[in-house]
Amino acid sequence: MSALSEFPVATMAATPVSERPIGVFDSGVGGLTVVSAIQRLLPHEDIVYLGDTARVPYGNKSPETIIRYAQQDVQFLQSQNIKAAVVACNTATAHALDAVRQSYTFPILGVVEPGVEAALAATVNGRIGIIGTMGTIQSGAYQKALLARRPELQLTAQATPLLVSLVEEDWLTHAATHLILAEYLAPLQAARIDTLVLACTHYPLLKGIIRSILGDEVKLVDSAENMALALQSRLKQDSLLREGGQHAGRTRIHVSDLSPHFAPLAKRFLGGRVGAIDRVRLEN
Amino acid sequence: MSALSEFPVATMAATPVSERPIGVFDSGVGGLTVVSAIQRLLPHEDIVYLGDTARVPYGNKSPETIIRYAQQDVQFLQSQNIKAAVVACNTATAHALDAVRQSYTFPILGVVEPGVEAALAATVNGRIGIIGTMGTIQSGAYQKALLARRPELQLTAQATPLLVSLVEEDWLTHAATHLILAEYLAPLQAARIDTLVLACTHYPLLKGIIRSILGDEVKLVDSAENMALALQSRLKQDSLLREGGQHAGRTRIHVSDLSPHFAPLAKRFLGGRVGAIDRVRLEN
Repeated sequence: MSALSEFPVATMAATPVSERPIGVFDSGVGGLTVVSAIQRLLPHEDIVYLGDTARVPYGNKSPETIIRYAQQDVQFLQSQNIKAAVVACNTATAHALDAVRQSYTFPILGVVEPGVEAALAATVNGRIGIIGTMGTIQSGAYQKALLARRPELQLTAQATPLLVSLVEEDWLTHAATHLILAEYLAPLQAARIDTLVLACTHYPLLKGIIRSILGDEVKLVDSAENMALALQSRLKQDSLLREGGQHAGRTRIHVSDLSPHFAPLAKRFLGGRVGAIDRVRLEN
Repeated sequence: MSALSEFPVATMAATPVSERPIGVFDSGVGGLTVVSAIQRLLPHEDIVYLGDTARVPYGNKSPETIIRYAQQDVQFLQSQNIKAAVVACNTATAHALDAVRQSYTFPILGVVEPGVEAALAATVNGRIGIIGTMGTIQSGAYQKALLARRPELQLTAQATPLLVSLVEEDWLTHAATHLILAEYLAPLQAARIDTLVLACTHYPLLKGIIRSILGDEVKLVDSAENMALALQSRLKQDSLLREGGQHAGRTRIHVSDLSPHFAPLAKRFLGGRVGAIDRVRLEN
């Protein structure tokens, strides 16, 4: 066997980078609202999704732990030969985006920046509300990014830690959910916000009940939709957008823990069509 | 250096086994209700507590993952030179007690058996309700253990997945908590239970609001108190109970993730007096 044959040059030619999948991760199932938005906007792209369901939720954990988990998540996506990664988790974006960007060369996009841009475009009176997990709100990521752009904004940020469980239990229109949301949203109403950032990928499923409390005059900024738009623009800029043609994008879902609840939940978040779900090990 | 000196015989004499600490673990903060009950009943005992807060909650994860986590939890407690271990988590007891017992020689007690004994002692009409996490209820651990002892019992088991978040957010008397509990408990009332097993270490904090819904005629079986009694009896049986004397038991708390929320939460669960909290790494 010659030394040369140890380097299979032929297979290195491979497919163009633009045909590689987009990697998306979240602590659990919530990031599938982002996947769904990417599927609608970029139907030719393949997507590799990772939900770290063995350690979900991230929202009430420390920055140090969240960074360690996010690094392991992106490492897994890298092993799937992705062309770009999306941190589809507000808590992980808030605490770990800078850290993971320092470890990889491919583009890594977080959900905070697109949400901030959309909120700035939406507000008229300069009073913006933000709801999210304890981790996201306490990180101040949205507050800092908004004020860096427009220091005169009046922001009201509210941690809403019960909402993830309510969404996952499918209590989307329940009287208890209404009561809890009314209490959470009261300070935002008192502050007369005209724009509310839904700073958690679970919250798009609560849009209906939030509208019923705040009324139509308050604009809701949905991380998922704005994330997909930002991704499209970045892929275009880096010449990484997949040429359409006949290819129908496929989505592969990976989770670090596969419980019986995941598949039905994933179906709700994706809006139908969930294929095979693979279990992967992330620690060490 | 002689070969003999490699074996420091003197240090092996050490303290009597009965003076070693009791190890207690839970997925998070809930097991501290068990610690509190042990402190009250066995005030001379030292306790080493581990809360796996980096991966909390266990309740909605798969049996396979829960077993892996529980093995790592007990391994940590073993490294602390314990004389006995308590699985102060209903989900971990339900899924992982047999597995961890096969790996260690010291006594390992779970919360299910003491709860079952107490429920059997409490019921008059033979109609028993059980509330717990999805994992605990779906495991059927309580149902099987109760029916094994008295096959004619009428059991009504109800998963109550929102309660842990409500307790951790300290919404113990909130109208939303009342609404949610009233809905969860309705099938148990319809089944005319006279005994309700609180099959989650978080639920003792909800006793007041549960009583206000069910009335005083339904007896509430609290895992924590019954666990402490079972531990006392087992330690006595194995001659492992610490001789009282002057020693005031100390409790050391370890967590796998230390967020700012933990200490205040721990204080509520323990009923005051929380010392230093150490962070440990469980994965490998």
